[in-house]
Amino acid sequence: MQASVYRLTMSHPGDLSELAALFESGSLDPSHVIAVIGKTEGNGGVNDFTRGYFTLAFATLMAGKLKLDIPQVIASIPCILSGGTEGVLTPHYTVFARSPASAQPDGKRLAIGVAFSVPMLPEQIGRQAHIDAVATAVQAAMADAGLENPEDVHFVQVKTPCVTLPRAEEATRRGAQVLTADPGRSMAYARVAGAFGVALALGETTAAAASEVAMFADYGIYSSRASISSGVEIEANEVIVLGNSAAWSGDLQVSHAVMQDALDIGAVSHALADLGIPALPQVSAQDAPRLRAVFVKCEPARAGKIRGQRHTMLEDTDINAQRHIRGAVGGLVAGVTGDTRLFVSGGAEHQGPDGGGLIAAIAQV
Amino acid sequence: MQASVYRLTMSHPGDLSELAALFESGSLDPSHVIAVIGKTEGNGGVNDFTRGYFTLAFATLMAGKLKLDIPQVIASIPCILSGGTEGVLTPHYTVFARSPASAQPDGKRLAIGVAFSVPMLPEQIGRQAHIDAVATAVQAAMADAGLENPEDVHFVQVKTPCVTLPRAEEATRRGAQVLTADPGRSMAYARVAGAFGVALALGETTAAAASEVAMFADYGIYSSRASISSGVEIEANEVIVLGNSAAWSGDLQVSHAVMQDALDIGAVSHALADLGIPALPQVSAQDAPRLRAVFVKCEPARAGKIRGQRHTMLEDTDINAQRHIRGAVGGLVAGVTGDTRLFVSGGAEHQGPDGGGLIAAIAQV
Amino acid sequence: MQASVYRLTMSHPGDLSELAALFESGSLDPSHVIAVIGKTEGNGGVNDFTRGYFTLAFATLMAGKLKLDIPQVIASIPCILSGGTEGVLTPHYTVFARSPASAQPDGKRLAIGVAFSVPMLPEQIGRQAHIDAVATAVQAAMADAGLENPEDVHFVQVKTPCVTLPRAEEATRRGAQVLTADPGRSMAYARVAGAFGVALALGETTAAAASEVAMFADYGIYSSRASISSGVEIEANEVIVLGNSAAWSGDLQVSHAVMQDALDIGAVSHALADLGIPALPQVSAQDAPRLRAVFVKCEPARAGKIRGQRHTMLEDTDINAQRHIRGAVGGLVAGVTGDTRLFVSGGAEHQGPDGGGLIAAIAQV
Amino acid sequence: MQASVYRLTMSHPGDLSELAALFESGSLDPSHVIAVIGKTEGNGGVNDFTRGYFTLAFATLMAGKLKLDIPQVIASIPCILSGGTEGVLTPHYTVFARSPASAQPDGKRLAIGVAFSVPMLPEQIGRQAHIDAVATAVQAAMADAGLENPEDVHFVQVKTPCVTLPRAEEATRRGAQVLTADPGRSMAYARVAGAFGVALALGETTAAAASEVAMFADYGIYSSRASISSGVEIEANEVIVLGNSAAWSGDLQVSHAVMQDALDIGAVSHALADLGIPALPQVSAQDAPRLRAVFVKCEPARAGKIRGQRHTMLEDTDINAQRHIRGAVGGLVAGVTGDTRLFVSGGAEHQGPDGGGLIAAIAQV
Repeated sequence: MQASVYRLTMSHPGDLSELAALFESGSLDPSHVIAVIGKTEGNGGVNDFTRGYFTLAFATLMAGKLKLDIPQVIASIPCILSGGTEGVLTPHYTVFARSPASAQPDGKRLAIGVAFSVPMLPEQIGRQAHIDAVATAVQAAMADAGLENPEDVHFVQVKTPCVTLPRAEEATRRGAQVLTADPGRSMAYARVAGAFGVALALGETTAAAASEVAMFADYGIYSSRASISSGVEIEANEVIVLGNSAAWSGDLQVSHAVMQDALDIGAVSHALADLGIPALPQVSAQDAPRLRAVFVKCEPARAGKIRGQRHTMLEDTDINAQRHIRGAVGGLVAGVTGDTRLFVSGGAEHQGPDGGGLIAAIAQV
Repeated sequence: MQASVYRLTMSHPGDLSELAALFESGSLDPSHVIAVIGKTEGNGGVNDFTRGYFTLAFATLMAGKLKLDIPQVIASIPCILSGGTEGVLTPHYTVFARSPASAQPDGKRLAIGVAFSVPMLPEQIGRQAHIDAVATAVQAAMADAGLENPEDVHFVQVKTPCVTLPRAEEATRRGAQVLTADPGRSMAYARVAGAFGVALALGETTAAAASEVAMFADYGIYSSRASISSGVEIEANEVIVLGNSAAWSGDLQVSHAVMQDALDIGAVSHALADLGIPALPQVSAQDAPRLRAVFVKCEPARAGKIRGQRHTMLEDTDINAQRHIRGAVGGLVAGVTGDTRLFVSGGAEHQGPDGGGLIAAIAQV
Repeated sequence: MQASVYRLTMSHPGDLSELAALFESGSLDPSHVIAVIGKTEGNGGVNDFTRGYFTLAFATLMAGKLKLDIPQVIASIPCILSGGTEGVLTPHYTVFARSPASAQPDGKRLAIGVAFSVPMLPEQIGRQAHIDAVATAVQAAMADAGLENPEDVHFVQVKTPCVTLPRAEEATRRGAQVLTADPGRSMAYARVAGAFGVALALGETTAAAASEVAMFADYGIYSSRASISSGVEIEANEVIVLGNSAAWSGDLQVSHAVMQDALDIGAVSHALADLGIPALPQVSAQDAPRLRAVFVKCEPARAGKIRGQRHTMLEDTDINAQRHIRGAVGGLVAGVTGDTRLFVSGGAEHQGPDGGGLIAAIAQV
Repeated sequence: MQASVYRLTMSHPGDLSELAALFESGSLDPSHVIAVIGKTEGNGGVNDFTRGYFTLAFATLMAGKLKLDIPQVIASIPCILSGGTEGVLTPHYTVFARSPASAQPDGKRLAIGVAFSVPMLPEQIGRQAHIDAVATAVQAAMADAGLENPEDVHFVQVKTPCVTLPRAEEATRRGAQVLTADPGRSMAYARVAGAFGVALALGETTAAAASEVAMFADYGIYSSRASISSGVEIEANEVIVLGNSAAWSGDLQVSHAVMQDALDIGAVSHALADLGIPALPQVSAQDAPRLRAVFVKCEPARAGKIRGQRHTMLEDTDINAQRHIRGAVGGLVAGVTGDTRLFVSGGAEHQGPDGGGLIAAIAQV
């Protein structure tokens, strides 16, 4: 088995022309596509419909190619999108493909696995059942990739549902009680449930520690490899696992590093150095083509300060705090990589340390 | 003569308590204060009143100390503020003071000069008379600093008025015609007039080249050392010039570098290296206290692309493009300096190359 | 011939379930659908992708029903959307259908016609060729409706393309020059071209008066029945004409009134009174079901004042002025109708008097 | 005793020129000023500094006139500001003055009283101690106005402090626990505490009912005459009570009405009719000068629907829900009054029914 990665750009959230061109030219077999992680240009919040728009356009394209109907595509290929390309970021999507090995394995290479959980009920969102469902799905995705050792896992992308006003109403009619009917807060709790689920599956913490009471309370409990997005457009958890495995061939590898805070440029250098790419201070023109994808999670420091100095992200009524932090960390990472096609996602609660986050990168060996 | 620089933070735009404390403790003589450059936490646009609020609070404090009335303070001490602390940036202000030399000059040291132009009429804003008024004021500020050689000038901060709806009406009543009555566009033209004025005074271009027709047309004409802010709250151009001079003593120096685009991390390293401060990839804890102030201008690339990849700043109806770019470039520079107390200002039209900008820094020798 | 009107709501911009249900139940024959006018919950600006998302979902549904492909649907059924449901407004869409008469005509009844122009080149947008193309298309739509007398036309909805950065580049490559490459300004010019085209077709002005030079200059030149939206997602002008005709049967009529300013509640009452619906001060519960659709255009007063008092819409960097005015006028009209399913669209330049706009309503006789 | 009311406009939040002019001309004796209620053009959120700016400018003016220092003015004259002039609203402020009666009382006339509570500790904000402190202050303000019968009270404006990040930290250092450290949520709880305090003082509810557990839970418990604003800039509760009293002379009266929802145009008509001012549909040019001030509280319906139709205010990441509702209700009320100088304030939790609010008006007899 070998993994391929295609980083494609779009001119608007419904523009799948670059993927269609890969299919047309025969460069990529549609049946090899197993997952998509993308960055669309919406606001990243509850009313960000660029994610749903891209998903509909993607599913329409794939349905035509695979002779499936649209719901079948959506239920079988995780398409995980994060809204928000603040600052210098470029709307783009990374297509992951899996195909028979064209050569013998030679060292550890990029391995990819995917899984879907059962649909979540609104009243489960952000609670123990949610944590458990994600943990189970991550294990399924690791098995799908043939990754047995959690140490070999470098990045786990999860998309998780949240409570919307209609879903909250529906639950109330059934006599169930949602954790919160505020969609923005629900998205936050859903992300933490996802992070705890990943941390459990990777053995980064214990079930006793990563429980409901630790949410937004004990920030020492986090996953160093989880990237969780939440959105109104899905009902089940979707999981994509990236790791390195000696059973896979190809020429790609993945690395990761923890960002201690929003200024942790050292973590960026470190993740790239692990792939043999120096950045002094920027990735060189020769190395740039080897760098095939970068994924970043970040979060405004909750105490309102970065290295002792006040920031204003959390008290801003005009611009959502997640939009602020994506723009800033995106600017930093793009300065190091010299490329604006970065997946930078906010809402990193319990994904890396408080006020920090994590970075993962895929490069050609 | 020697220059001192105090980088102070505020808990809100009317909070001058740190400056008041310097006065109370005798650390700073109020009569030595000659200029302020600050970053307040408003939106940086026409309706950013954090600048006026800070100015009123500053003038009230100084009026009490200097036994002047508030308008006298405002007319004699340039207090130049730029709104917008997007992302990681910290609201803060840098106070510039000038005092008799405490030691013999020993090499070139930081020199500071200030000047005010005559008030601009609304119909002059963004036109030739505006360019000329700024050029004259820059020369006056250079003379005030004793800086004869334009090569010794590293940073020129200008605050320039713009047209508001009431001012446009007033002009119309007089039969005069403003360049534009749209306040946002007027601010942009005012910034270009300021940039051209600085470029002329520093000999970076010729009067023939830096004319009205080149505005927003020939982006090859720019100043590499001009930082222009525009605001509704003033009527005259205010100028602060920073350079290095063998006639000044003290222990401070200033440097600058041009940023070719929003990812130009090399320019940041370069400006710091000129001050003997390495950043590999970040300024060390030992060097950090030596770095006393950083000033950055930046601007979203007009063609909608950065190094060939699309950005979304110019097509965003929700967040102003200047807010986007300040957040991104602020994130990058803070990653290198390890400090969020940065003056990062948008609206860098013709201040550095299109889509780029400039950086200046002050450090202890 | 007779016209039907279906006012449907959506839970998100891709939700066509109510229309699908009408088809499923046999209440509406898909082949009778001739046009859609809708209000989606985006920001109404250049980066509002809710319009494209709805259009894709609508075209997918219709393509399945009509055995056409998606581009054929888009090229044959005008689907005109305006983004922005600020304040109390409800995302919804009105489906217009045309079917054989079920009874003899009895008085003037609602007549509907549609037309498409040829695609516009980027360099034509906002210029004379654009005005002319819209005028021709309006005449075609009137002919399609069998409306000969312009006095019988009460509402003309036009969707018109604008210049985007890629289109501007494409034009530049061909040596052509766009009026403006700023997408927001291009949308504004495109709306004026549309308004002038309608005014010409309805005989409200002359070709000499409604020319390029009058744009944003002579606000006395306007259409009292034009509603123009502009968007990045189309290339040709799309026109829907609503009038009353003795040749049509059915039980619907349309009326309109000009709003002199944003406070012109009298115009709202007037338009409803013409349909025999009093509002003292609100439409009664008995009359409410008769009111089947309401269309409003509005615009922030350019001089910055409403009845002599300052407004802040045009100087706001945080919220786009069009979002402000839609929210305010939507609140006013909803208070009179008692219903939030209103099409309230900003960008009413030269559509009604400056700072005002227009209202049209459809009701059961 | 008699009350006067001056409705003044400002060109920016630091512009007190109209009040200064009243003092200069001798029209108003500075020592008669007892309170100010104003609407500034900020965002109305935590980072709205237009309130602090106005307060500093007002206190500076009054300090000069009254030979007090600035803190003394702030501690003796309630200056209650609400940020946000979305849509058609005009930034303005109403100055309340109290002077010896110039004639015998003749029927009930406008009576005004003010009071300050003790400063609140951060951990008290939004809790029982906060409710009680407001109730006590309202009773003190009623006594100050000589209003004994709660039925004679028509409007109670309260400004109440909230928790900021520094205040939360300070409390934590003392071992105290704040209700919430999220400033936006703290403002909301503070408003409810204020509303419950007013309801208790006016006998609209019981202490058992208006307790902490009812906050954001039992929306049947509300005050029909409370208008609460919350802001970072104060530490004590400030109260202004408006009523009608036979002991006061002058020519002004105050009325109020409850708005059942955001479309309740009937309540607006009703409040005006109580003052003898018809609005069919708009206040006439003759009556307009009699209407001297209008105060409105409003709130987005929590269930996401208005009269059964979805609204999008609560799921919008770009525009704060309070900004949406102020714009919409402001548009409605301005349409009825024909005047944009309205105090329309969001955050009406438990001030009128859920999704509704209240209106009060002052007019000349």
